Amino acid sequence: MGSDSDWPTMKAAAEALEEFGVAYEADVVSAHRMPDEMLAYGREAHGRGLQVIVAGAGGAAHLPGMLAAVTPLPVIGVPVALKYLDGMDSLLSIVQMPAGVPVATVAIGNARNAGLLAVRILAASDVTLREEMVAFQERLADAARAKGEVVRGARPEAAR
Amino acid sequence: MGSDSDWPTMKAAAEALEEFGVAYEADVVSAHRMPDEMLAYGREAHGRGLQVIVAGAGGAAHLPGMLAAVTPLPVIGVPVALKYLDGMDSLLSIVQMPAGVPVATVAIGNARNAGLLAVRILAASDVTLREEMVAFQERLADAARAKGEVVRGARPEAAR
Amino acid sequence: MGSDSDWPTMKAAAEALEEFGVAYEADVVSAHRMPDEMLAYGREAHGRGLQVIVAGAGGAAHLPGMLAAVTPLPVIGVPVALKYLDGMDSLLSIVQMPAGVPVATVAIGNARNAGLLAVRILAASDVTLREEMVAFQERLADAARAKGEVVRGARPEAAR
Amino acid sequence: MGSDSDWPTMKAAAEALEEFGVAYEADVVSAHRMPDEMLAYGREAHGRGLQVIVAGAGGAAHLPGMLAAVTPLPVIGVPVALKYLDGMDSLLSIVQMPAGVPVATVAIGNARNAGLLAVRILAASDVTLREEMVAFQERLADAARAKGEVVRGARPEAAR
Amino acid sequence: MGSDSDWPTMKAAAEALEEFGVAYEADVVSAHRMPDEMLAYGREAHGRGLQVIVAGAGGAAHLPGMLAAVTPLPVIGVPVALKYLDGMDSLLSIVQMPAGVPVATVAIGNARNAGLLAVRILAASDVTLREEMVAFQERLADAARAKGEVVRGARPEAAR
Amino acid sequence: MGSDSDWPTMKAAAEALEEFGVAYEADVVSAHRMPDEMLAYGREAHGRGLQVIVAGAGGAAHLPGMLAAVTPLPVIGVPVALKYLDGMDSLLSIVQMPAGVPVATVAIGNARNAGLLAVRILAASDVTLREEMVAFQERLADAARAKGEVVRGARPEAAR
Amino acid sequence: MGSDSDWPTMKAAAEALEEFGVAYEADVVSAHRMPDEMLAYGREAHGRGLQVIVAGAGGAAHLPGMLAAVTPLPVIGVPVALKYLDGMDSLLSIVQMPAGVPVATVAIGNARNAGLLAVRILAASDVTLREEMVAFQERLADAARAKGEVVRGARPEAAR
Amino acid sequence: MGSDSDWPTMKAAAEALEEFGVAYEADVVSAHRMPDEMLAYGREAHGRGLQVIVAGAGGAAHLPGMLAAVTPLPVIGVPVALKYLDGMDSLLSIVQMPAGVPVATVAIGNARNAGLLAVRILAASDVTLREEMVAFQERLADAARAKGEVVRGARPEAAR
Repeated sequence: MGSDSDWPTMKAAAEALEEFGVAYEADVVSAHRMPDEMLAYGREAHGRGLQVIVAGAGGAAHLPGMLAAVTPLPVIGVPVALKYLDGMDSLLSIVQMPAGVPVATVAIGNARNAGLLAVRILAASDVTLREEMVAFQERLADAARAKGEVVRGARPEAAR
Repeated sequence: MGSDSDWPTMKAAAEALEEFGVAYEADVVSAHRMPDEMLAYGREAHGRGLQVIVAGAGGAAHLPGMLAAVTPLPVIGVPVALKYLDGMDSLLSIVQMPAGVPVATVAIGNARNAGLLAVRILAASDVTLREEMVAFQERLADAARAKGEVVRGARPEAAR
Repeated sequence: MGSDSDWPTMKAAAEALEEFGVAYEADVVSAHRMPDEMLAYGREAHGRGLQVIVAGAGGAAHLPGMLAAVTPLPVIGVPVALKYLDGMDSLLSIVQMPAGVPVATVAIGNARNAGLLAVRILAASDVTLREEMVAFQERLADAARAKGEVVRGARPEAAR
Repeated sequence: MGSDSDWPTMKAAAEALEEFGVAYEADVVSAHRMPDEMLAYGREAHGRGLQVIVAGAGGAAHLPGMLAAVTPLPVIGVPVALKYLDGMDSLLSIVQMPAGVPVATVAIGNARNAGLLAVRILAASDVTLREEMVAFQERLADAARAKGEVVRGARPEAAR
Repeated sequence: MGSDSDWPTMKAAAEALEEFGVAYEADVVSAHRMPDEMLAYGREAHGRGLQVIVAGAGGAAHLPGMLAAVTPLPVIGVPVALKYLDGMDSLLSIVQMPAGVPVATVAIGNARNAGLLAVRILAASDVTLREEMVAFQERLADAARAKGEVVRGARPEAAR
Repeated sequence: MGSDSDWPTMKAAAEALEEFGVAYEADVVSAHRMPDEMLAYGREAHGRGLQVIVAGAGGAAHLPGMLAAVTPLPVIGVPVALKYLDGMDSLLSIVQMPAGVPVATVAIGNARNAGLLAVRILAASDVTLREEMVAFQERLADAARAKGEVVRGARPEAAR
Repeated sequence: MGSDSDWPTMKAAAEALEEFGVAYEADVVSAHRMPDEMLAYGREAHGRGLQVIVAGAGGAAHLPGMLAAVTPLPVIGVPVALKYLDGMDSLLSIVQMPAGVPVATVAIGNARNAGLLAVRILAASDVTLREEMVAFQERLADAARAKGEVVRGARPEAAR
Repeated sequence: MGSDSDWPTMKAAAEALEEFGVAYEADVVSAHRMPDEMLAYGREAHGRGLQVIVAGAGGAAHLPGMLAAVTPLPVIGVPVALKYLDGMDSLLSIVQMPAGVPVATVAIGNARNAGLLAVRILAASDVTLREEMVAFQERLADAARAKGEVVRGARPEAAR
């Protein structure tokens, strides 16, 4: 992430990775305040054994795109909403990348989905992890079903 | 894709995959017009050996998100611009997925980047493919450098 | 609805139906978390005697459109505003459906209008219900007239 | 519709109704240029045996909402895009109705869906029409499937 | 205004009129809930001696435009912001009127300016009122100048 | 207007005034290129006998607001759409004036409505002109009615 | 600035200038409430020895552009967010200036960057100030690096 | 600029500089395709004697902000409109920079103003250049005045 002020948003990505037992590192590499380290981080990532990079940024959010420019790894971008514009500036700054340098963008503020997308990417070539993702999706369905019971129970006067 | 009318946009994804020698299939599975086949397609994809799904759609673009709901594979969404709104509706319909079900969204109309992102995802666990991606990025840089010469040459009257 | 977190918004639809004595059921069927049940719910709805479906969803709001894809019944969509974008993403994801699969969309967060629209739809072939809708509209007018008195009374110093 | 200039857009609603053998009338009743006739049209509609009103309008699009104010019938609104803003003004003017007076809004410029929604509304209490809608949806699926063959055939070089 | 809930916003128009000693009346005439009275109000306004109408409304804000359709008087529209969209829907619903039926639109929520615009309109043919407007503008300038002193005084350390 | 490039848009205001026999002058006074003359024009307008100012401008459209700052006359602003953004920048730059200095804003590119609004303003204290406006509105209604016949005639196959 | 209500936003520009020891003055010159003084301020600025003007304004934000019209100095515009629209109206009113009269626009509400941009402009021809800007940027990088340690330390359970 | 495809837009900046006799160089340094050269270009710019950098870019436009991160010089950003979104993505990606790293942003597609802003920046400490800017502004005023004559001459029938 570009600043530790993004951590309250971005830690949800870390939590998702931990749920799947995927090792990760969390760090601040600011595109605008420490561009050389940022490029070095991106360039060395795959050599250090990283397989996916998750980058969150807000406003003129350049971090995901700049990392994508120097790494062959898939880069996932999380638009972080700042005080104004509800994250629309962050979203467009991250997703509207030119041909040749893609960023895999998730919903505004949805770092959890960035973590889950990273798991899916790793699971593309890891059968065990993929089965865990299938199991996770089944638990999502179970939880959604349970919510339905709550709503049905809350309206006994309704005709069925 | 949801309709063959998306093919002029989406074929750029296929071309990118072919440049890297990545096998793929192209098909129409409409979320709104053939929802059962669509879900079946998504559900069976990883069993058939697919590793990544690229889905393009426009307007109330539900295809990428619905496929992501039934597959553990990473799903890449391409917002296709329709007659009105310049693809902003497509972008929001694809990227703003709820927690649990991510879609890796690329720029409006940028199917080439969807193909390249698929390559990066495969390359996350394929050293050879990753080296080809690094080489591809170097060719991008070379092409950009060549463009600079054109501009410099076009303005000989400029002081340097 | 797609989640019980939508219930605080969506219960206004139920209340409107109850005001008109229209039987209904409330349930959670998530497009993204339980897609098979969602499609089954939609496909079986008219066979179970339902005549209208009201579906609320937020963000990449796919529930109304996916239900509309599998039912011949009219589907009313309620855009639910989430934390960011004030429901604009929900609105566009619901209303911008492709030709062939309409969703009857109401205002952002306005589930009461979804309930009232359901009543109007039923009243299209039910004279008694239609007369109740006419009476309801007269009560709306009476209430609006009463509000005028309040404002007029609140400004006695104004020249008339 | 509010002007005959809307007819090129709105005739697609008429065509959809004709496909289902649903009788209809087409007329111009301008909210801003002939407001009395407009209100009279709305108020008398159900007495004349109309069951659904489809209203298209652009810009500050007041026709659908004003008709909904005086009729107990369901009113379907079609946002017509004018020269600027791609129909976003029309969409918001139609969909953002206050509580009590709903308008069933469809996609910008998508009058065909307005016609199909009218058919669904009538079919809510007409088993024959509902079966025709089911058959129509099956034909949509068949057409979508056929499109898939085109795309698959167009890329024989792709590995499968 | 269309509802007494608009009064907290709209009373600033009344206050501006009172500052200039301009007689006015405040009333609720809802376009959607009492359309006949609304049209009657508009149609009879000039016969009753009104010279300008100020109309505030939110969301699908039809009141100003519908009044403008039935009166030859100038109608001033005030977009009232509702819970979502910050009044952008109200603004577009009021300002984007079709050729033939103008509404003089002021800023979102700025009913004071609606009152001041009404004064200017009356002052177009009333020399005394115009002189009072000139004097008002001079007081605005004086107040702005006084604010400058505050800011200058608050930063004595600044070099000048 | 701020530039003669606005004339193709703005001449529709002049035409409306001519239809009502209202004398006017057309001129270019650029807020950004000749600010002193612009302010002088605004300040001297009412002394020269002008009663209303119509100002069209595009982009960062400052002309209407700056004129309103120096004249006690009502100022009508016409947002002119430039190459990008469909006039949304012009609209916001004109309509969002601060308290104290209103601009009567009409629809994007709708200079005809600016002319008609000027007529209404003059007619607020001119009975003859007001009667002409009433007659004009009746002609608008007649024209709209005639359009209805065209549409009805164009669809003889429709059931009625 | 146009009003002392902008001071809480704008003082961050003053603070940035003080950090670099750059002399400045803070004042209120309202484009809409005291246009003559505003133009005089702009016109006399360079004669008084000012080298850069920073102007903040909200809504229909005309101050930066009008100052730029009468001074040959670089003018920096700060869009100030008002109650509605999150500063998007302010941004467009400031940045979308016509050819010939540029305003150097910074992010919504980001007066600190306006101050820093002023320093860079002065530093373009002041080697000492430029070196201080380089040192400032190094401190920014150090601070960003320190933030990284916090994040890394906060997640000891993460694999590295 | 980031690509020679930006040259048709960006050459207007070069032309403005030539009009003032300001030496410049034009080059392509892509943030995404040659990030190292891009950073090196920015870092070395002031050492090579450059005083201002003008950077144009479209979409997720990272070039201006990344250059600003590594140079103490003022950086002027020109949002270039691409196929979709009318440059709104480019504008937000350029202007919404975080505190510490400003970019002086001009209007969408308005490279001429970027050139003129560069001249103003240089003129902040160059009396001769400033006088030329004053003279330029006087010529702008003369041209605007001449346009007024055209409009006045084109409407001889107008009453004055």
